[in-house]
Amino acid sequence: MSTTDKELRVGMVGYAFMGAAHSQAWRTVNRVFDLPARARMALICGRDTAKVADAADTLGWDAYTTDWRDLINRDDIDVVDICTPGDSHAEIALAALAAGKHVLCEKPLANSVEEARAMTAAADVARAAGVRSMCGFNYRRVPAVTMMRQLVADGRLGVIRHVRATYLQDWIVDPQFPLVWRLQKDRAGSGALGDIGAHIIDLTQFVTGQRISGVSAVTETFVKERPLPAESSGLAASVDGHTAPTGTVTVDDAAVFVARLDGGALATYEASRFATGRKNALRVEINGSLGSVVFDLERLNELEFYDATRPAVEQGFSRILVTEGEHPYMSAWWPPGHIIGYEHSFTHEMRDFIEAVATGVDPTPSFADALQVQLVLDAVARSAELGSSWAEVEPALTAAAV
Amino acid sequence: MSTTDKELRVGMVGYAFMGAAHSQAWRTVNRVFDLPARARMALICGRDTAKVADAADTLGWDAYTTDWRDLINRDDIDVVDICTPGDSHAEIALAALAAGKHVLCEKPLANSVEEARAMTAAADVARAAGVRSMCGFNYRRVPAVTMMRQLVADGRLGVIRHVRATYLQDWIVDPQFPLVWRLQKDRAGSGALGDIGAHIIDLTQFVTGQRISGVSAVTETFVKERPLPAESSGLAASVDGHTAPTGTVTVDDAAVFVARLDGGALATYEASRFATGRKNALRVEINGSLGSVVFDLERLNELEFYDATRPAVEQGFSRILVTEGEHPYMSAWWPPGHIIGYEHSFTHEMRDFIEAVATGVDPTPSFADALQVQLVLDAVARSAELGSSWAEVEPALTAAAV
Amino acid sequence: MSTTDKELRVGMVGYAFMGAAHSQAWRTVNRVFDLPARARMALICGRDTAKVADAADTLGWDAYTTDWRDLINRDDIDVVDICTPGDSHAEIALAALAAGKHVLCEKPLANSVEEARAMTAAADVARAAGVRSMCGFNYRRVPAVTMMRQLVADGRLGVIRHVRATYLQDWIVDPQFPLVWRLQKDRAGSGALGDIGAHIIDLTQFVTGQRISGVSAVTETFVKERPLPAESSGLAASVDGHTAPTGTVTVDDAAVFVARLDGGALATYEASRFATGRKNALRVEINGSLGSVVFDLERLNELEFYDATRPAVEQGFSRILVTEGEHPYMSAWWPPGHIIGYEHSFTHEMRDFIEAVATGVDPTPSFADALQVQLVLDAVARSAELGSSWAEVEPALTAAAV
Amino acid sequence: MSTTDKELRVGMVGYAFMGAAHSQAWRTVNRVFDLPARARMALICGRDTAKVADAADTLGWDAYTTDWRDLINRDDIDVVDICTPGDSHAEIALAALAAGKHVLCEKPLANSVEEARAMTAAADVARAAGVRSMCGFNYRRVPAVTMMRQLVADGRLGVIRHVRATYLQDWIVDPQFPLVWRLQKDRAGSGALGDIGAHIIDLTQFVTGQRISGVSAVTETFVKERPLPAESSGLAASVDGHTAPTGTVTVDDAAVFVARLDGGALATYEASRFATGRKNALRVEINGSLGSVVFDLERLNELEFYDATRPAVEQGFSRILVTEGEHPYMSAWWPPGHIIGYEHSFTHEMRDFIEAVATGVDPTPSFADALQVQLVLDAVARSAELGSSWAEVEPALTAAAV
Repeated sequence: MSTTDKELRVGMVGYAFMGAAHSQAWRTVNRVFDLPARARMALICGRDTAKVADAADTLGWDAYTTDWRDLINRDDIDVVDICTPGDSHAEIALAALAAGKHVLCEKPLANSVEEARAMTAAADVARAAGVRSMCGFNYRRVPAVTMMRQLVADGRLGVIRHVRATYLQDWIVDPQFPLVWRLQKDRAGSGALGDIGAHIIDLTQFVTGQRISGVSAVTETFVKERPLPAESSGLAASVDGHTAPTGTVTVDDAAVFVARLDGGALATYEASRFATGRKNALRVEINGSLGSVVFDLERLNELEFYDATRPAVEQGFSRILVTEGEHPYMSAWWPPGHIIGYEHSFTHEMRDFIEAVATGVDPTPSFADALQVQLVLDAVARSAELGSSWAEVEPALTAAAV
Repeated sequence: MSTTDKELRVGMVGYAFMGAAHSQAWRTVNRVFDLPARARMALICGRDTAKVADAADTLGWDAYTTDWRDLINRDDIDVVDICTPGDSHAEIALAALAAGKHVLCEKPLANSVEEARAMTAAADVARAAGVRSMCGFNYRRVPAVTMMRQLVADGRLGVIRHVRATYLQDWIVDPQFPLVWRLQKDRAGSGALGDIGAHIIDLTQFVTGQRISGVSAVTETFVKERPLPAESSGLAASVDGHTAPTGTVTVDDAAVFVARLDGGALATYEASRFATGRKNALRVEINGSLGSVVFDLERLNELEFYDATRPAVEQGFSRILVTEGEHPYMSAWWPPGHIIGYEHSFTHEMRDFIEAVATGVDPTPSFADALQVQLVLDAVARSAELGSSWAEVEPALTAAAV
Repeated sequence: MSTTDKELRVGMVGYAFMGAAHSQAWRTVNRVFDLPARARMALICGRDTAKVADAADTLGWDAYTTDWRDLINRDDIDVVDICTPGDSHAEIALAALAAGKHVLCEKPLANSVEEARAMTAAADVARAAGVRSMCGFNYRRVPAVTMMRQLVADGRLGVIRHVRATYLQDWIVDPQFPLVWRLQKDRAGSGALGDIGAHIIDLTQFVTGQRISGVSAVTETFVKERPLPAESSGLAASVDGHTAPTGTVTVDDAAVFVARLDGGALATYEASRFATGRKNALRVEINGSLGSVVFDLERLNELEFYDATRPAVEQGFSRILVTEGEHPYMSAWWPPGHIIGYEHSFTHEMRDFIEAVATGVDPTPSFADALQVQLVLDAVARSAELGSSWAEVEPALTAAAV
Repeated sequence: MSTTDKELRVGMVGYAFMGAAHSQAWRTVNRVFDLPARARMALICGRDTAKVADAADTLGWDAYTTDWRDLINRDDIDVVDICTPGDSHAEIALAALAAGKHVLCEKPLANSVEEARAMTAAADVARAAGVRSMCGFNYRRVPAVTMMRQLVADGRLGVIRHVRATYLQDWIVDPQFPLVWRLQKDRAGSGALGDIGAHIIDLTQFVTGQRISGVSAVTETFVKERPLPAESSGLAASVDGHTAPTGTVTVDDAAVFVARLDGGALATYEASRFATGRKNALRVEINGSLGSVVFDLERLNELEFYDATRPAVEQGFSRILVTEGEHPYMSAWWPPGHIIGYEHSFTHEMRDFIEAVATGVDPTPSFADALQVQLVLDAVARSAELGSSWAEVEPALTAAAV
C-alpha cells in the first residue's frame, strides 16, 4: 500500500462471474502494487436484495444497493465499475459519465454499434472534464500479451503477414444445457462472437497495432432449441429433460471469419462454444517477416517467440516463461517460475486504471478502442447474414488509439 | 519379401523431391511389408540425360529414358508413377491409362478442373479394363491420420462441429528467394493453395468422410516480384541481389478460407508459405459432439484424442504415440516408441497401391476423389477472385468414394 | 464470507516472500471459500520497526510488533503463522504451542531432526488440549497434486514402481550472486536440499502414501565463495565484483539421490539451484503397474495421466486441465479453463487449516509428517557425507499420517 | 550413388530386430549419401536355415549362411556387422578382426568388462593393420544428438553442472510377459541396464565429452518369475497363463544411479522397462553455466536449447526442429520440417562407418569408447550389489576418444 492518502471509492454494478473477478482484483491491487491512490470497495449494486447483501459480505464491499442510479448519484463514489450483461452497459455508462464518475466498463462495450458510438461520444465529452473511461479487455494485461505487443512495436516480428486467432470453449456442447442469458440475443447481443470473439479481435488489434479492415464470415447455431433454465421457466427442470419447456437460441454458437488487417496481413478468427475439450482456449499466432509469436490463455504464463534473425541452426520457438521481474507487471508478484492465474489480468487492469485516473491520463483501451471492436463484430454479423460476402469494417469516425 | 513371383514393373517420371521420396518407398516397401507382388524399379524418366542417368544410378533404377512416351509404350512396364509438376500430369496420365498402365499420380491431380475431369473420366474407362489409378495424397497413410479416420468412422467423435486445418511453411519469406517453378502459375497451377492447401483439403475430407460444400476465401501474394533463378535467367545471380533480373510471381503466397462441410460442420483452412518458423506445419483439429482429435505433421507419430465420454475429472487430450503394433501399418516397423518419418507415408502408399493392383481392387484416393479436391481448389480461387463471395463447390458428376 | 461470527485472529511472524504469500492467502480465503470461521489478519511481527510497519500497511494487517514473544503472549491471537527462516521455527513454535496457540509453520519444519522431534512432541501434547498444528507444505494443495494422491489412493496406478522427482531452479548460477541467508547453513539448515528438496520429498510421500526408507546421495557446492550482500558486509558492492568481501557458501547448491520407498518402488530425486533455464521446475512422475501420472509446477493447472487399462490403441498421456468444478478446490474459483496460480496453493492451505481448527480436527501435514521429511533430509545429508553409502531413514518413533 | 566403383561387401550376423534395422540402413545409405564406397549386402548369417533364408530374401541380402565362421573366412567379405545378442559379440568380433575384417558391433560391446577389454585390445592390434572397428551406439547419429555435442564442444553450455538421463520403456510391465532372452543374464549380460542404460551412458558421455567417474546405484527385479516362452519350453502357452512352466528372471528390470562426471557435474541415470506409458523414452537434459539442452528420443527431430546469454526477457527453451539442411546429416534428406525416424540413425551410422573405412580413418565410437561404457555398467552393477556404496569407474587403461 502506498503512503498516499488518496482514495478512489469504487461502486460496482453486478456481482456474478465478472463481479467476483473484479472484486478479487480491487481487493488485491493495492496490496501488490505501489500506486498513487488506493481503491476502496465502497458499494456494490444488484437487483436482488438478498443476493447483493450476501455478495457484499462475501466479496468484501462496504455497502450495497439495489439501484444503480443510486450508486451513480452518490457523492462518495468516484469510480463506476460496470459488470452487468451487455444490454445495460450503455444506459449505466452514459449516466455515470454524465454524473462525472470515472467508468470502467466490461467488454463488449455494448450490444450494438449505435450504443457504442453514443458511449464513445459521451466519453469524449467527459474526458474534457477530466473524467476517465476504459473498457475492460483484461487479456491485454496478461503479461505475455503485453510482451507480445512490445515485441511487435519494437519491430521484432517485421512486417506482419498472418494472424490466426481462436477462442474455443465447449460449455454448451450438451444440447440439454439450458437457455441462459448468454444464449439470448436481447441480453447478450450475440453469442460466441461478442462474448469471446470480441476478446480475440481486441487482443490481435492491440498486439499488432493494426485494425481489421474487412471480413468474410460464417456463423452457426448448432443447437437451436434448449430447455429454459429452472429459474426463468418457473419450473424445476424435469428429470429426463424431455418435458422441460424449451426456448429458441437466438445467438450464434460459433463464428468463423477470414479478415484483412490494414497493414496487409491475412487473418483467420474462430470463436466457438462447441469445441469439445477446449475449455478456455484463446490462442493467437502471429507471423511476421522477422519472427513469430504464439500465445495460449490456458498456459498464460508462457509466450512462444520465434526469432528468424538467429542463426539458422538455432532457430526455434522459444517457450518464454513470462515470470521474470523484467516482464510486464511481474516484479510485483513472486520469484521467477511461480506462475500467476487468470484473475491477475484483472488486478493488472485495475492497477493501470487506478494509475491513469490518479495521474490524470486516459487509460486504454478507451471506449473508442472498444467501439472499433464493436464495428468488427458488426461487420462479421453483416457478412454472415449476407452469405459470407465481404464486409468492410466501418470507420469509427472518432480518434482512437488501439 | 513375399514368396510371390509376381512383379510390378514401375516406370517413374520425374526425379526431383517427389522422385526421391517415391524411390525410397519403392525400394523399401517389399522389404518391410509382405505383399502379393513385388515392385521392380524398372525405369526412370527425365528430360535431362545426364541428370536422369545420375538419378537412376543414385536412386537405384534399372534403366532410364528421357522420353516419357517411350516409358509408356514399353511392354515391360506395368505401373506409371507420375512425379512431375502439375502441368504435365494430365497428358502423361491420359496416355498411360490409354496404354493400359496402372497409374499413380502425385497430387494435385492436375492444374485445372477440366484436366482433372478428363483424367477421372479416363480412369473410369480404364477401370473397366482392370487398369487401376490412384492419386498420391500420401498423408492419408500417416498412421495417425488413418487412425483419425477410423475414430470418426467408429462414431467416437459424434457429430462433427468444427474442422480447423492449417498447412504452414516459411521457405519463401525472404523476398530474394528466386522465382522457381512452384511460383509460376503455368507450371504449378497455383501456389500454396494447390501445393499444400490441397493436402489439408484432402486430409480433412478423408478423415471426416464429408465434403466441403462451399467456401469464402482470401488469397494474397505478399512478394510480387522475385529474382529469376540463375538457371532460368541464364545468368549467375548477382552478389547483392539487386541487379538480378526479376519476374512476376503469378501464384498465391497464402490462401485462407472458411468453409462448410456437407455434414454441417464449420471449417477454417489456411495454407501459407509465409508463416515464419513453421516448416511443415500441417495441423488439423476436429471437434465433434463426443470428442476431438488433433494432428501435427511435424510430430506425425502422435495423435491427440479427447474422449468426452470419459469421467469429467479425467477428460483431457491424450497424446497417443501411434507406434504400437495395433496401429495402422505399424506392425511392419519397429517396437513401440521407435518413431517413423515423413518418407514412411510413401512406403505405406506403395504398400496399399501394390496390394490393390495385385488383388484387382481400386486403390484410394481415386482420381475422382482427387477431382473433388480440385473442385474445392477451384471454388477457393473463384471466391478469392470475386472478393471473398461465397462459392459453392461444383458437383463432381461422377461416383467417388472419399 | 460465511454467516459465521467465529473469528480466528492470526498473528504472522515474518514478512518476506512467505509472509507476502501467506498474507495474500489470509486476505482471500474467506472471500472465495465458505468456511466455519473467518480469519482476521490481526498482527504481523518483524524485527525491523520501519519495515514491519510498512509491511503491515501494504499487506493489510491490523497491527504490528517487533517481538514475536509479544505476539505469542497476546490473548487476542488464536493462530501463530511462522514464516521466518528455519533457524527460528522451533523456538517460536514451541513457545506458541505452550501458549495454547494453533500453529501453522512454514516448511521445512526445522533445521535439524532434534528440533523437529521436539516440535512434534510438543504438538502431540498440545493436541490433547485441542491445540492444532500444521506444517505448510503448500504444494499438497495444488489441485493437480491433490488429484494425483486421489488417483493413487483409488488404485488407478496399481503397484507403484517408479518415482522420479526433480525441483530445479537456477537463481544462483551466477557466481556473483551474493551470499544471502539461504546460502548459510546456520540460518537455512541446508541449501537446495532443505529448501526445495523438502518439497519433493513431502509431495511424493503424500501422493504415493509411502515413505522413503533409504537413500544414497551426492551433494555439491559448485560455487564455494560468494560476495557478501551489501547490507551484511556494510559496504556497497564494488563495481567490478572483484574487491567485494566474500564469504563461504556453507550449504549445498544441488543434491541428487536414489531412494527406495517402503512399498517397493525405486526413486530418483534431484534438487538444484544450478539448473540453467529451470525457474521453478518441480516435476514429478510416478509409474505404477496400471498407470502413470506426471506433474509440473510451472504448469500447475495440468496433470498428465496414463491409464494402462484403456484399449491399447488409445493409451496415451492425457493432459487434464485441472480446472473443472469437480476437481479439488476448483468449484470456488473460475469457470473451466481459467487457470489459477502459485499463490492459490496457500489459499487452499489456509482453507483447510481454518476448517480443521474451526471444526476441531487435526490438519495435515502434521508436525509428525514434517518430521518424517526431516528424517529423509537427514539421511540424504548423512549419505552424502559418507561417500554416498546407503543411509536408512530413521523411524519417527511417533504416530504420523502421511 | 557415388561414381566410385569401390565396394564394401558386408556380411551381417543376426537377422532379428537389429538385423532388420541394419539392413534398412545398408540398403538406403548409398541412395541418400554420396560416399567414397558402396555397401553391398553380400551375406547374412543365422543359425536357423529356413529363417535365415527367408531373412535374406525379405531383407535383400545376396546370400546366406548358417555358420558365422564361414562368413568370417570368406575372402569376398570386407565388413562384419554383428547384430547378435551380447553373449556372442566377443567371439565373433575377435575372429573377424583376426581375419582382417572391418567390424561393426552392436552395443553393448560385450557382456563383461573382460570381453570388452579383449575386444579393445584386438581392435588396437587390428588398427595397426588398417582394420577398422566401431561399436554401434546409433543414437550418436541422431542429428539432434550430434548437434547437442557440437553445442557443448563450442562452449555454448559453459561448465556442465547437471546431467539427467532416463531411458524408459514398459514392455514387460505385464507379469505374464515371457522370459525371453533379454531377461536372461547369460544371454543378455544384464537387463535394462545394459540394454538401454548403456545407451544413455554412451550418449551423455559423448555429448558432454566427459567420463562418468563414479556411481551409486540401485537395481531391482520387480517380477522375479515369468512364464517360459512357448518355443523354449517346448509347450504352447497355456490359456490362462497359470500352468505354463516358469523360469527365474536373472537380470534387472530397472536400474537407477547417481553419478559424478569427471568435469565436475552431478548426474542421475535411470533405465527401466517398468515405466508404464513410456515406450522408448530416452530423455536427456544437460544444464551448464551458460545454457541447457533437452532431448527426447520419442521426438527425435527436436532439440530444446536454452541460451542464458540471451536478453533476460527473451530466454526460454527453444524447440529447434532439427530438419534444416544446415543440421547434421539432414541435407541428404527432405526439406525442412519433413521429419525422419528411428531407423535413420542407423543409416547415418553406416554413412560414417563407410566413409571412415573407405578413407582409412578410425570410426567412432571405438571399441575403447564402448569399453568405457562397459566399465560404467560394471561399476553400476558393483554398487548395486554392495548396497549402493560408491563405486569408482575403473580406468580403461587404453587410449580412447569419447
